[in-house]
This record gives sequence, C-alpha cells and structure tokens, in this order.
Amino acid sequence: MKVAFIGASGHQGLALEAVGKVAELEFRGMAAGGPEEDVTPWHARSLAPLGVPLFDDWRDMLDRVKPDVAVVAPWFHRQAPVAIECIRRGIHVFLEKPMALVPEDLEALRAAWRGGSVKLCPMFALRWAPAFWAAYQAVRDGLIGEPLVLHAQKSYRMGDRSGLYAARATYGGTIPWVGIHGIDWIHWFTGGRILDVTARHTARDNGGFGDMESSGMCLFRLGNSGTATLSIDYFRPAAAPTHGDDRIRAAGSRGVVEVMDGKAVLCTASEPPRLLDLEAGDGIFADFLRHVRGGAPLRVGAEEAFSVAELALKSRESADTGRTVPFRGR
Amino acid sequence: MKVAFIGASGHQGLALEAVGKVAELEFRGMAAGGPEEDVTPWHARSLAPLGVPLFDDWRDMLDRVKPDVAVVAPWFHRQAPVAIECIRRGIHVFLEKPMALVPEDLEALRAAWRGGSVKLCPMFALRWAPAFWAAYQAVRDGLIGEPLVLHAQKSYRMGDRSGLYAARATYGGTIPWVGIHGIDWIHWFTGGRILDVTARHTARDNGGFGDMESSGMCLFRLGNSGTATLSIDYFRPAAAPTHGDDRIRAAGSRGVVEVMDGKAVLCTASEPPRLLDLEAGDGIFADFLRHVRGGAPLRVGAEEAFSVAELALKSRESADTGRTVPFRGR
Repeated sequence: MKVAFIGASGHQGLALEAVGKVAELEFRGMAAGGPEEDVTPWHARSLAPLGVPLFDDWRDMLDRVKPDVAVVAPWFHRQAPVAIECIRRGIHVFLEKPMALVPEDLEALRAAWRGGSVKLCPMFALRWAPAFWAAYQAVRDGLIGEPLVLHAQKSYRMGDRSGLYAARATYGGTIPWVGIHGIDWIHWFTGGRILDVTARHTARDNGGFGDMESSGMCLFRLGNSGTATLSIDYFRPAAAPTHGDDRIRAAGSRGVVEVMDGKAVLCTASEPPRLLDLEAGDGIFADFLRHVRGGAPLRVGAEEAFSVAELALKSRESADTGRTVPFRGR
Repeated sequence: MKVAFIGASGHQGLALEAVGKVAELEFRGMAAGGPEEDVTPWHARSLAPLGVPLFDDWRDMLDRVKPDVAVVAPWFHRQAPVAIECIRRGIHVFLEKPMALVPEDLEALRAAWRGGSVKLCPMFALRWAPAFWAAYQAVRDGLIGEPLVLHAQKSYRMGDRSGLYAARATYGGTIPWVGIHGIDWIHWFTGGRILDVTARHTARDNGGFGDMESSGMCLFRLGNSGTATLSIDYFRPAAAPTHGDDRIRAAGSRGVVEVMDGKAVLCTASEPPRLLDLEAGDGIFADFLRHVRGGAPLRVGAEEAFSVAELALKSRESADTGRTVPFRGR
C-alpha cells in the first residue's frame, strides 16, 4: 500500500499513527499542496527520518510514485481541487476536513467521487476518539432513548497560526474548520435527521488573525422535533491543561450520555452515572487502509461525510447572513 | 415585618430560609391562590408548626393580616393577577417566576409596579446559588474579558407533577418555567445586551404531561457580536444523584468560567483552572426583606426581572412560531 502526502497544513500526522499497525504500508513521497506552503519543516521532522523523499511538485510526485492512497492536507482552499485530481487518477483519498470551503467545490468533489471508483475518508478523527465512539454506541443502541436535546462543544487555544487562517478565502471560517467536528458528532448521533440550522459567529477578540472568527454557535432543528446546539471558540486559555476541550451531551427520555475530559459517562433511569468502557483502536488511518484493502466498513461513509461538509457550509451561510438555512427535508 | 403566603405551587419555601436570619420576621397567614389549588399539605408541613393560620380566601387574608410582604406562588397563570392586586394594596411582592405567562399580563404587572411604590423580587433564587454568584462576579470583574460565547443548561427530573403542568394555559411552557433561570443567567452575565432569540421546543417524550414541553433550546444573539445558548430538558434520569443539573459556561478572550456540580471554576491565560471561593449568604428572601426594610441593593432589580421575563416569553414565542424574535435594539 503506497502512500503519498500532499500538504502539511492540517492533520496529515494522523497517517503516522498507522505505522506498525497495517502490513505493507509504505510512505513513498511528500510534496507541498501549493506554492504558498512550506512543508519542509514537517517533512524533516516526520518523514525524513523514515527515508521518505520530498518532491517539488505534487502532480509530478503522483506521476512518479503512483500511490494507492494520498494524504491530502494542503492550504484549506486546495483540499477539494487536489482531492478531485487524485480521484481522477484513481487514488484513494484521506482528506483533511472540511474537504471544501465553498459549495461549488464541494459539489464538484462529490460529483467526482460519485463518478469515480476510489475510497474517500475525511479526517473526522474525533469519531475515533474512544469516548466519542463509546457515547455514539450508547446512543445508537438506544440507551438514552431518542436523542432530543444535544449540545456539543469545541474549544481550542488560539495559539500561533499561519497566515492561511487570517483570510476567509484560504481558511474557510471557524465553523467549517473547528465546528465541523461538532457538526459531525451531531449529524452522526442523530443519523443526519437535521432540518435546518441557525448560526452566529464573530471575529471579535480573534488575536489579530484577520477574518478568523474567534467564536460562534449553531442551533440545529432535528427531524425528531428535538434540537442540537454547538459552541465553538478559540478561547481555551493558554494555561488550560490541554489544547482542546471537546464535549458532547445527548439526552433523551431514557437517559443522558456525555463526553468530557476524554471520558464518556452514561446515566439512565435505573443506573446512576457510570463510565463507559473505552476501546483504543488503531485509529482512523489504519481503519481507512483496511477499508481500502478489503472493504471493511468505516465509521464514516463518504456520502455521509459530504452531508456533514454541506451542513458545515450551510451553518457558515446562516452565520454570515443571519438567516435560518434549510438542510434536509426529513 | 409581616409576611403572608399566597399559594403553594412553587418555591414559596424560599421564604422559610430567612427564619432566624432576619429580625422581627413574622409569618402571619397563608391562603390558596385560587380554587384549583390545595395548599393544606404544604401549610400543614411547613407553616402550621410555626403557628401560622390558614385562610380560606387570599384577599380576605390580606384585608385582615395587612402584611408588609406577600410570598406569591399560586398556579402559574395567577402569578401576575395576584401580584398586581398586592401592588395595588401597597404590599411588597416576592413573586414566583416567570411572573406572567402571557405578554399582556407581564405588561399589566410592569405597569402596576411602575405606578406603585412597592418592592418586587422574582424568585430568581439561582442568582443566590453560591457558584453562580461567584461566576457572575468573575465575569463582572472582567476576568474572562468580554463574554462572547455562553452556554447554560437546565436539566431536571421529570418526576411527578400536578395537573397545572399539563396545560399551556396554567403552566406557560417549559421555556418560561424551567428555562427562565438560564435566560436570567445569560441576561445577567451579558448585562441584558441581547438582540434576538431563536428557540425550539418539543413535547415529545414528556411522560404524558399533556402540553408540557420535555425539552428545548434557545440561541441568543448578543449586542457584543457574541452568542449564548441554553439547553432545557426534563430528561435528568431518576437515578441521577440530584434533581437538577444546572450549568453555565462563559468564555472570552481572557478566560473561561464555568459552573457545574455546584462548583465554579475559572481558567485564564496565566492561571490554570481553579475553584472560585463560594459565599453561602442568607438567601434570596432574607436579602429581599433587607432590601424592603433599608433599601439595600438586591442582586436582581425589578426592571431587570421584567426584562428577563419578557425575554422568556419571546423565547417561547420563537419556539412556537419557528421565527427569530427581536428583543432589544442594543
């Protein structure tokens, strides 16, 4: 299984987690995703020690390496165009989210994927975070009843960020970049039965990062008459113990399940709060390679991922316009 | 200070907390707030041991006892009319929230209060919960910067409920009854700078309690460009350790403050998470009596309380209609 890396502006490091877990895995090359990107520091640190060569041009690399799988994490506005080119060449794609920054790019990517014959996995790595996987299974198994009220949270440190974050054209916005994980959890936990979204965001107090929104909120009306909200911010203090503070709480008439601090807690009518067992697993990229190789089911399907990405862009549209934006009719 | 009780359908028990804390406090009588209400069990348990007589008719009681203060907690649709009658008689009012179930009643109450000369305090007792008070002070003192993203939670057990809850006409809805506390925190923490509200609610899985909404969510657009959300549900499981699970989290560029499990935690850029010191205080009713007696400032002003009550009714209107409802212009 030959793997090539295009870009180092996101979570391409997820691919490294599969080393030693998947047989016959070969990292064969790396290239920048565009002229604006310098991937040499990441290459020197992460791939050079493994003897993986650096190429000047990603298309040239694909011509020469002929990889089975591309790990695509360029500047964000290039995610869709690079992925489309990989699909056109018959290369499976492990793609940084949100996958596309504008609806036109998302539709072009979806059309290319539907017209091709490759596997695609977005870097929705938090579905592989053990506590979120455990909570999802509790909901899926009906342990809380029908989820009627859900709240998710993504809170990150502001930290130092490259120039790509400062412009909407290259960054896409905080709702698609950070919020998409929470949007994904809500879509996942509710089976995508989301009728519309009402969202707000602001660039106030954004540490001088240009257009970048410091924070925002989304409210989703669910097909089951319930509601879900998502809180997103870059206000996690520097002195906080971790970079991120990821949470979800889902409640229904049978119980409540909640993820916080990397733990999943379930409480039901008959059972006081208890920690759910967590499974570590091999991670998203190892599972994707097995999916490519043998068709093993993946925790996220490509069609579902496109739906999540579309919902992220509609959420941003709602925040930009102030209007409630319809999503699905069910 | 002569006190009379009208109704036993809410948090009239808050008045008992002032016993032994306020000098010359005399409970002089109790009566039902209407023919639908049987206050005898609560009277027998709480006031009869103190020798407080039960009256057949609350107006007759007011004529005879001439109280300084009325504790008003009838069936909810009678809150405003009873309070208006007390104000007309020059009696200070400690009034169950949401104070009014329809805008017309709220406006009549506000007009009566503005035209009278009595003190009024809504039973926003959670402003006196030590952790919420500590968190409020942290926000007020600028420790988190401008709050740009807030999320509040009210989660209660369904439990057994009287018939008043089953009909909108007597109950008012879960947003005004349960949600108003979270609406109050958000109004309080943001200085009431709220531009509009978008809310959803549902009566699904409500345990057979008629119209009563089992759950809902509100999203508030703030005057500072931030956003606040509120989650409300009756899905707290019977096996949970407490009746309620009250929370708020407020974040800004300087830090995050959060209330959960009766604790308040602050984290800033320079300071890892730490518990805020909590003050027990004497409670809302003792403070109200001091306010009545000497004009000492109260944690909630009547005008502010009317604004919160109005926002609760507008939130319900948004949930009923599906539309975003304007609130203030600032």
